[in-house]
Amino acid sequence: MASSERYAQLATAIAQAGLDLYLVPMVDEFQGEYIPAYAARLPYITGFTGSAGMGVFHAAADTGKKHALFVDGRYTLQAPGEVNGEHITVVNSGDTGLADWLIANAPAGARIGFDPWLITEQQREGWSKATANHSIQWVPIRGNLVDGIWPDQPTPPAGAVQLHPLALAGQSYAEKRGTLLANMGKQKAQALVLTQSDSINWLLNIRGDDVPYNPLLLAHMLLQADGSATLYTHPHTFTAEVSEYLAAERVTVMALAEVFSDAIALPAGTIMLDPAATAHGWFALAQSKGCDVIRAEDPAQLPKALKNTAELEGIRAAHLRDGLALVRFLHWFDTQASNGKFPDELTVVERLEQFRAMDASYRGPSFATIAGSGPNGAIVHYRADTKSNRRTRAGELFLLDSGGQYADGTTDVTRTLFVSSPAGGAPAPQVREIFTRVLKGHITLGAASFPAGTSGVQMDVLARHALWSAGLDYDHGTGHGVGAYLCVHEGPQRISKRGSAMALQPGMVISNEPGYYAAGQFGIRIESLVAVTPRGTMADGKPMLGFETLTLAPIDARLIDVALLSMDERNWLNAYHRRVYEAHAPQLDDKVLKWLAQATRAI
Amino acid sequence: MASSERYAQLATAIAQAGLDLYLVPMVDEFQGEYIPAYAARLPYITGFTGSAGMGVFHAAADTGKKHALFVDGRYTLQAPGEVNGEHITVVNSGDTGLADWLIANAPAGARIGFDPWLITEQQREGWSKATANHSIQWVPIRGNLVDGIWPDQPTPPAGAVQLHPLALAGQSYAEKRGTLLANMGKQKAQALVLTQSDSINWLLNIRGDDVPYNPLLLAHMLLQADGSATLYTHPHTFTAEVSEYLAAERVTVMALAEVFSDAIALPAGTIMLDPAATAHGWFALAQSKGCDVIRAEDPAQLPKALKNTAELEGIRAAHLRDGLALVRFLHWFDTQASNGKFPDELTVVERLEQFRAMDASYRGPSFATIAGSGPNGAIVHYRADTKSNRRTRAGELFLLDSGGQYADGTTDVTRTLFVSSPAGGAPAPQVREIFTRVLKGHITLGAASFPAGTSGVQMDVLARHALWSAGLDYDHGTGHGVGAYLCVHEGPQRISKRGSAMALQPGMVISNEPGYYAAGQFGIRIESLVAVTPRGTMADGKPMLGFETLTLAPIDARLIDVALLSMDERNWLNAYHRRVYEAHAPQLDDKVLKWLAQATRAI
Repeated sequence: MASSERYAQLATAIAQAGLDLYLVPMVDEFQGEYIPAYAARLPYITGFTGSAGMGVFHAAADTGKKHALFVDGRYTLQAPGEVNGEHITVVNSGDTGLADWLIANAPAGARIGFDPWLITEQQREGWSKATANHSIQWVPIRGNLVDGIWPDQPTPPAGAVQLHPLALAGQSYAEKRGTLLANMGKQKAQALVLTQSDSINWLLNIRGDDVPYNPLLLAHMLLQADGSATLYTHPHTFTAEVSEYLAAERVTVMALAEVFSDAIALPAGTIMLDPAATAHGWFALAQSKGCDVIRAEDPAQLPKALKNTAELEGIRAAHLRDGLALVRFLHWFDTQASNGKFPDELTVVERLEQFRAMDASYRGPSFATIAGSGPNGAIVHYRADTKSNRRTRAGELFLLDSGGQYADGTTDVTRTLFVSSPAGGAPAPQVREIFTRVLKGHITLGAASFPAGTSGVQMDVLARHALWSAGLDYDHGTGHGVGAYLCVHEGPQRISKRGSAMALQPGMVISNEPGYYAAGQFGIRIESLVAVTPRGTMADGKPMLGFETLTLAPIDARLIDVALLSMDERNWLNAYHRRVYEAHAPQLDDKVLKWLAQATRAI
Repeated sequence: MASSERYAQLATAIAQAGLDLYLVPMVDEFQGEYIPAYAARLPYITGFTGSAGMGVFHAAADTGKKHALFVDGRYTLQAPGEVNGEHITVVNSGDTGLADWLIANAPAGARIGFDPWLITEQQREGWSKATANHSIQWVPIRGNLVDGIWPDQPTPPAGAVQLHPLALAGQSYAEKRGTLLANMGKQKAQALVLTQSDSINWLLNIRGDDVPYNPLLLAHMLLQADGSATLYTHPHTFTAEVSEYLAAERVTVMALAEVFSDAIALPAGTIMLDPAATAHGWFALAQSKGCDVIRAEDPAQLPKALKNTAELEGIRAAHLRDGLALVRFLHWFDTQASNGKFPDELTVVERLEQFRAMDASYRGPSFATIAGSGPNGAIVHYRADTKSNRRTRAGELFLLDSGGQYADGTTDVTRTLFVSSPAGGAPAPQVREIFTRVLKGHITLGAASFPAGTSGVQMDVLARHALWSAGLDYDHGTGHGVGAYLCVHEGPQRISKRGSAMALQPGMVISNEPGYYAAGQFGIRIESLVAVTPRGTMADGKPMLGFETLTLAPIDARLIDVALLSMDERNWLNAYHRRVYEAHAPQLDDKVLKWLAQATRAI
């Protein structure tokens, strides 16, 4: 079908629903990082392929008006090239909020329709409040209007579901459930609804395969005060093992469609819902069934983030094997360049994947590898494709950000490499200075001690201070949470300029990734994962914490200006490199071992 | 009157007002740092003299029950020694909140009375929300019940009011008013009520003398969209100059009593009120008069904090004169000790005051001097009195935190001094290590560059990092805002572990004061005031900021372990000491000059 027809059909459906405008967000009912094909409604209508965005479409009667596509700064250049500008205008959501746009563009008394299962309660409330003084009505519409005009819409994913072994999970479903039931008891809640899939997969000790990169069964879940639960999913065929396990744990499986059509029963009394993560549909459902709602942050997110001993052991083991693959890759990469063979970005991605896949427990990448040669390294969310694919060149930098999913852990590591040549060569002094400032930030944060109660927003500056001193900065967070064979981006932990006062707590795994990006020239990022660990007590008796660096891969010393490092920083790097060498030496053949010895020698 | 009688009379008044319980907070109607004698209602009833606290008193019928005095951690030791334990129990407000205590202790259906002019709207809302599921009624009571049983209650202060010259203020009332009117216009507000006295004294370019240390006329103020205003004060006699100035600026003066009795008229329409700073009384008054309320942070606080060029010049000049006084004092102190004469704390306070008072523009201390000898230095809010007064001893530390109000600026400076002796002597290595870590924090923060938009909560760790590395910390903020011949503690700027995302902005004056306190042994704090200043641009074009250190007084180098300082830190200290020397040298006689040369020599 031609794109124009899709716009026209949607406009007709909007008019038939008695609406003036209709929202089509780039999300599914699970608000996760990746959406399955059936939920790619915005791309179906517009052709836009970015990871985030919101379409606002007019009803048929308003054919003179252009629809609007809201995208953030990452996609303001890309989106206009993908969509048909005759039908839709790209709006920078950083400049114009949805509410402001509607106030300026919606007709008086406008009825704005939305799918109540795709819009969180917090979003709805925010827009509703922002438009309170204007004659705008927010109208939830059951049944997505795009689905009605999408004849060959893919079916929802039905990926295989596996049990996550207790030996790796460290805690049974019954134990985790006990924590949540205690929380519900304190709040006198009869039921708790979880809608973040990583909460549910963690809680039930299961892993799925419904989306790329994150090993998730997409689901909602209702846990009752008596310990019984209902798991709502799109149709899946579970193995007998999984079905029996769920039945034994008093977890009933039901179709999500029953939730979306308001057909399910809810226990009488009080129900806990998270307005920031959970669709408006659940709030409306609870209200229609006469339940009282307690608004509370998803209570599974924090315990999920606090990895137990078994999980940390698995994560360490996964990082050891991941580091080994990376060392073999780095040796290959450096040897190629030294022999005058300069691989392109896609070849790098492929070779790295081959080294990782040598390990039997490897399940695939934890996100699409970022392999940026020279100026491509400056594009923070770069993905090489056949069009952009660029060969490495001698004397340039190569930024490589990748990670793996393993049965026992999730990894995420960035190294910035100097591309050598048969003639040797050295990086420009300015590049070495900046790399060293990034490294100083990485070390200052990684080596820091801090009292319990300290939050990521407090720690962030330690990674930026050396860059700021030279007028440099990076426009992304310093650290994101990472799951245990779960999502490579998880909450609630975070190290960034803004953000919550959530304290960093023992067992949290988080990235340490300062960087610097010179547009059109080069990108630098040094990323290792770290675990928050106890470090005895402060003088005042408070618990003291620090970081254990989990990632075991050399940092390219050719890019360091040693004179800029303090003695403490040099000692930290030398100790880290000794750890890397000793960790991998037993597994390496002579050639790679010799390379690693050189790459990790003390400076 | 005996203390028991006061409790009994208050209990009778509470019963007569039809209440079960009544709140007596340690505040006046201006929510400032210091309260005048007439507002010391809690001390009148209980004898408690701390700077913060809240009494909760039962009605006469409940004579079996003890009243409660809520105090924070600073006063949990002091308060029980001051109050009569037969009548009242001291409660640590850090352990038990008022709402929780009431839920546990108030009778079913309890009516809790409070003075609507002493409780902010935010407090009332918080308590009301926290007790929403319990049968507790919050009842504002016009006329304070303590006043009714306090025969010799002092009258409100009527300090002299002066105009603050335009040459020092840098901006006329009309200009400042224009900023606020523009803000009101954007929000379509007909009126703005200010209740923070520093906002009002700043806005009107006046200074008063109603409380110690802060040069304030205590007032509320109502500004109307047409630019006319009403200033509500307790009875004062203004000079003809002040009266004429106010009249010319269309500022009508009225009695605060008219506000408190709801007798005033309010302009029809919308009124801006700050729930965090403003008493519930204003919200109730606005409602009773049919006004719509816009809740907004006091819009004078931020422009007040952004000092203009004239203010910064005044502040620099005040710091130069204050530093000179401090240098003369430090020379005296050090010479005394070297000659075997060891002054006590009260003598130190007196001598320092004499050195400051040599300057004609000196208006008095900006807070009660903290002069802590040896272990007394570890008490963060220590005030020497005849009982605690302690002589300095050779080999110990002396912590001296003081400040001055000058016609052109406000100062606040802490230096930690080594008490020498005729035999010389040196501090213990452990003390030098800790002092040096405090100094490293002071320098790291003071020398930092940062992009515009950075908040104090982000910067705080720079002052703590070197201490945390050794398991040490301090239990107070790193920096508080300071006014321009105004309050020595002002908002909205702040550098601390918690707190708002308020960005540090050019013109803000703030303290830089890391420390360390070893209970029973010694206290260390190094405090200078700094001004946020532009420093060109970051590589990405964003404005870059830094700090200009305003305080000009030597830091005791005998306490430094030079080996622990980086070369950058040594350079910073040497450059600072050179500035101090050059600033004061022309004013000093030979003896003091020689001492200063020695105290500021390069390390």
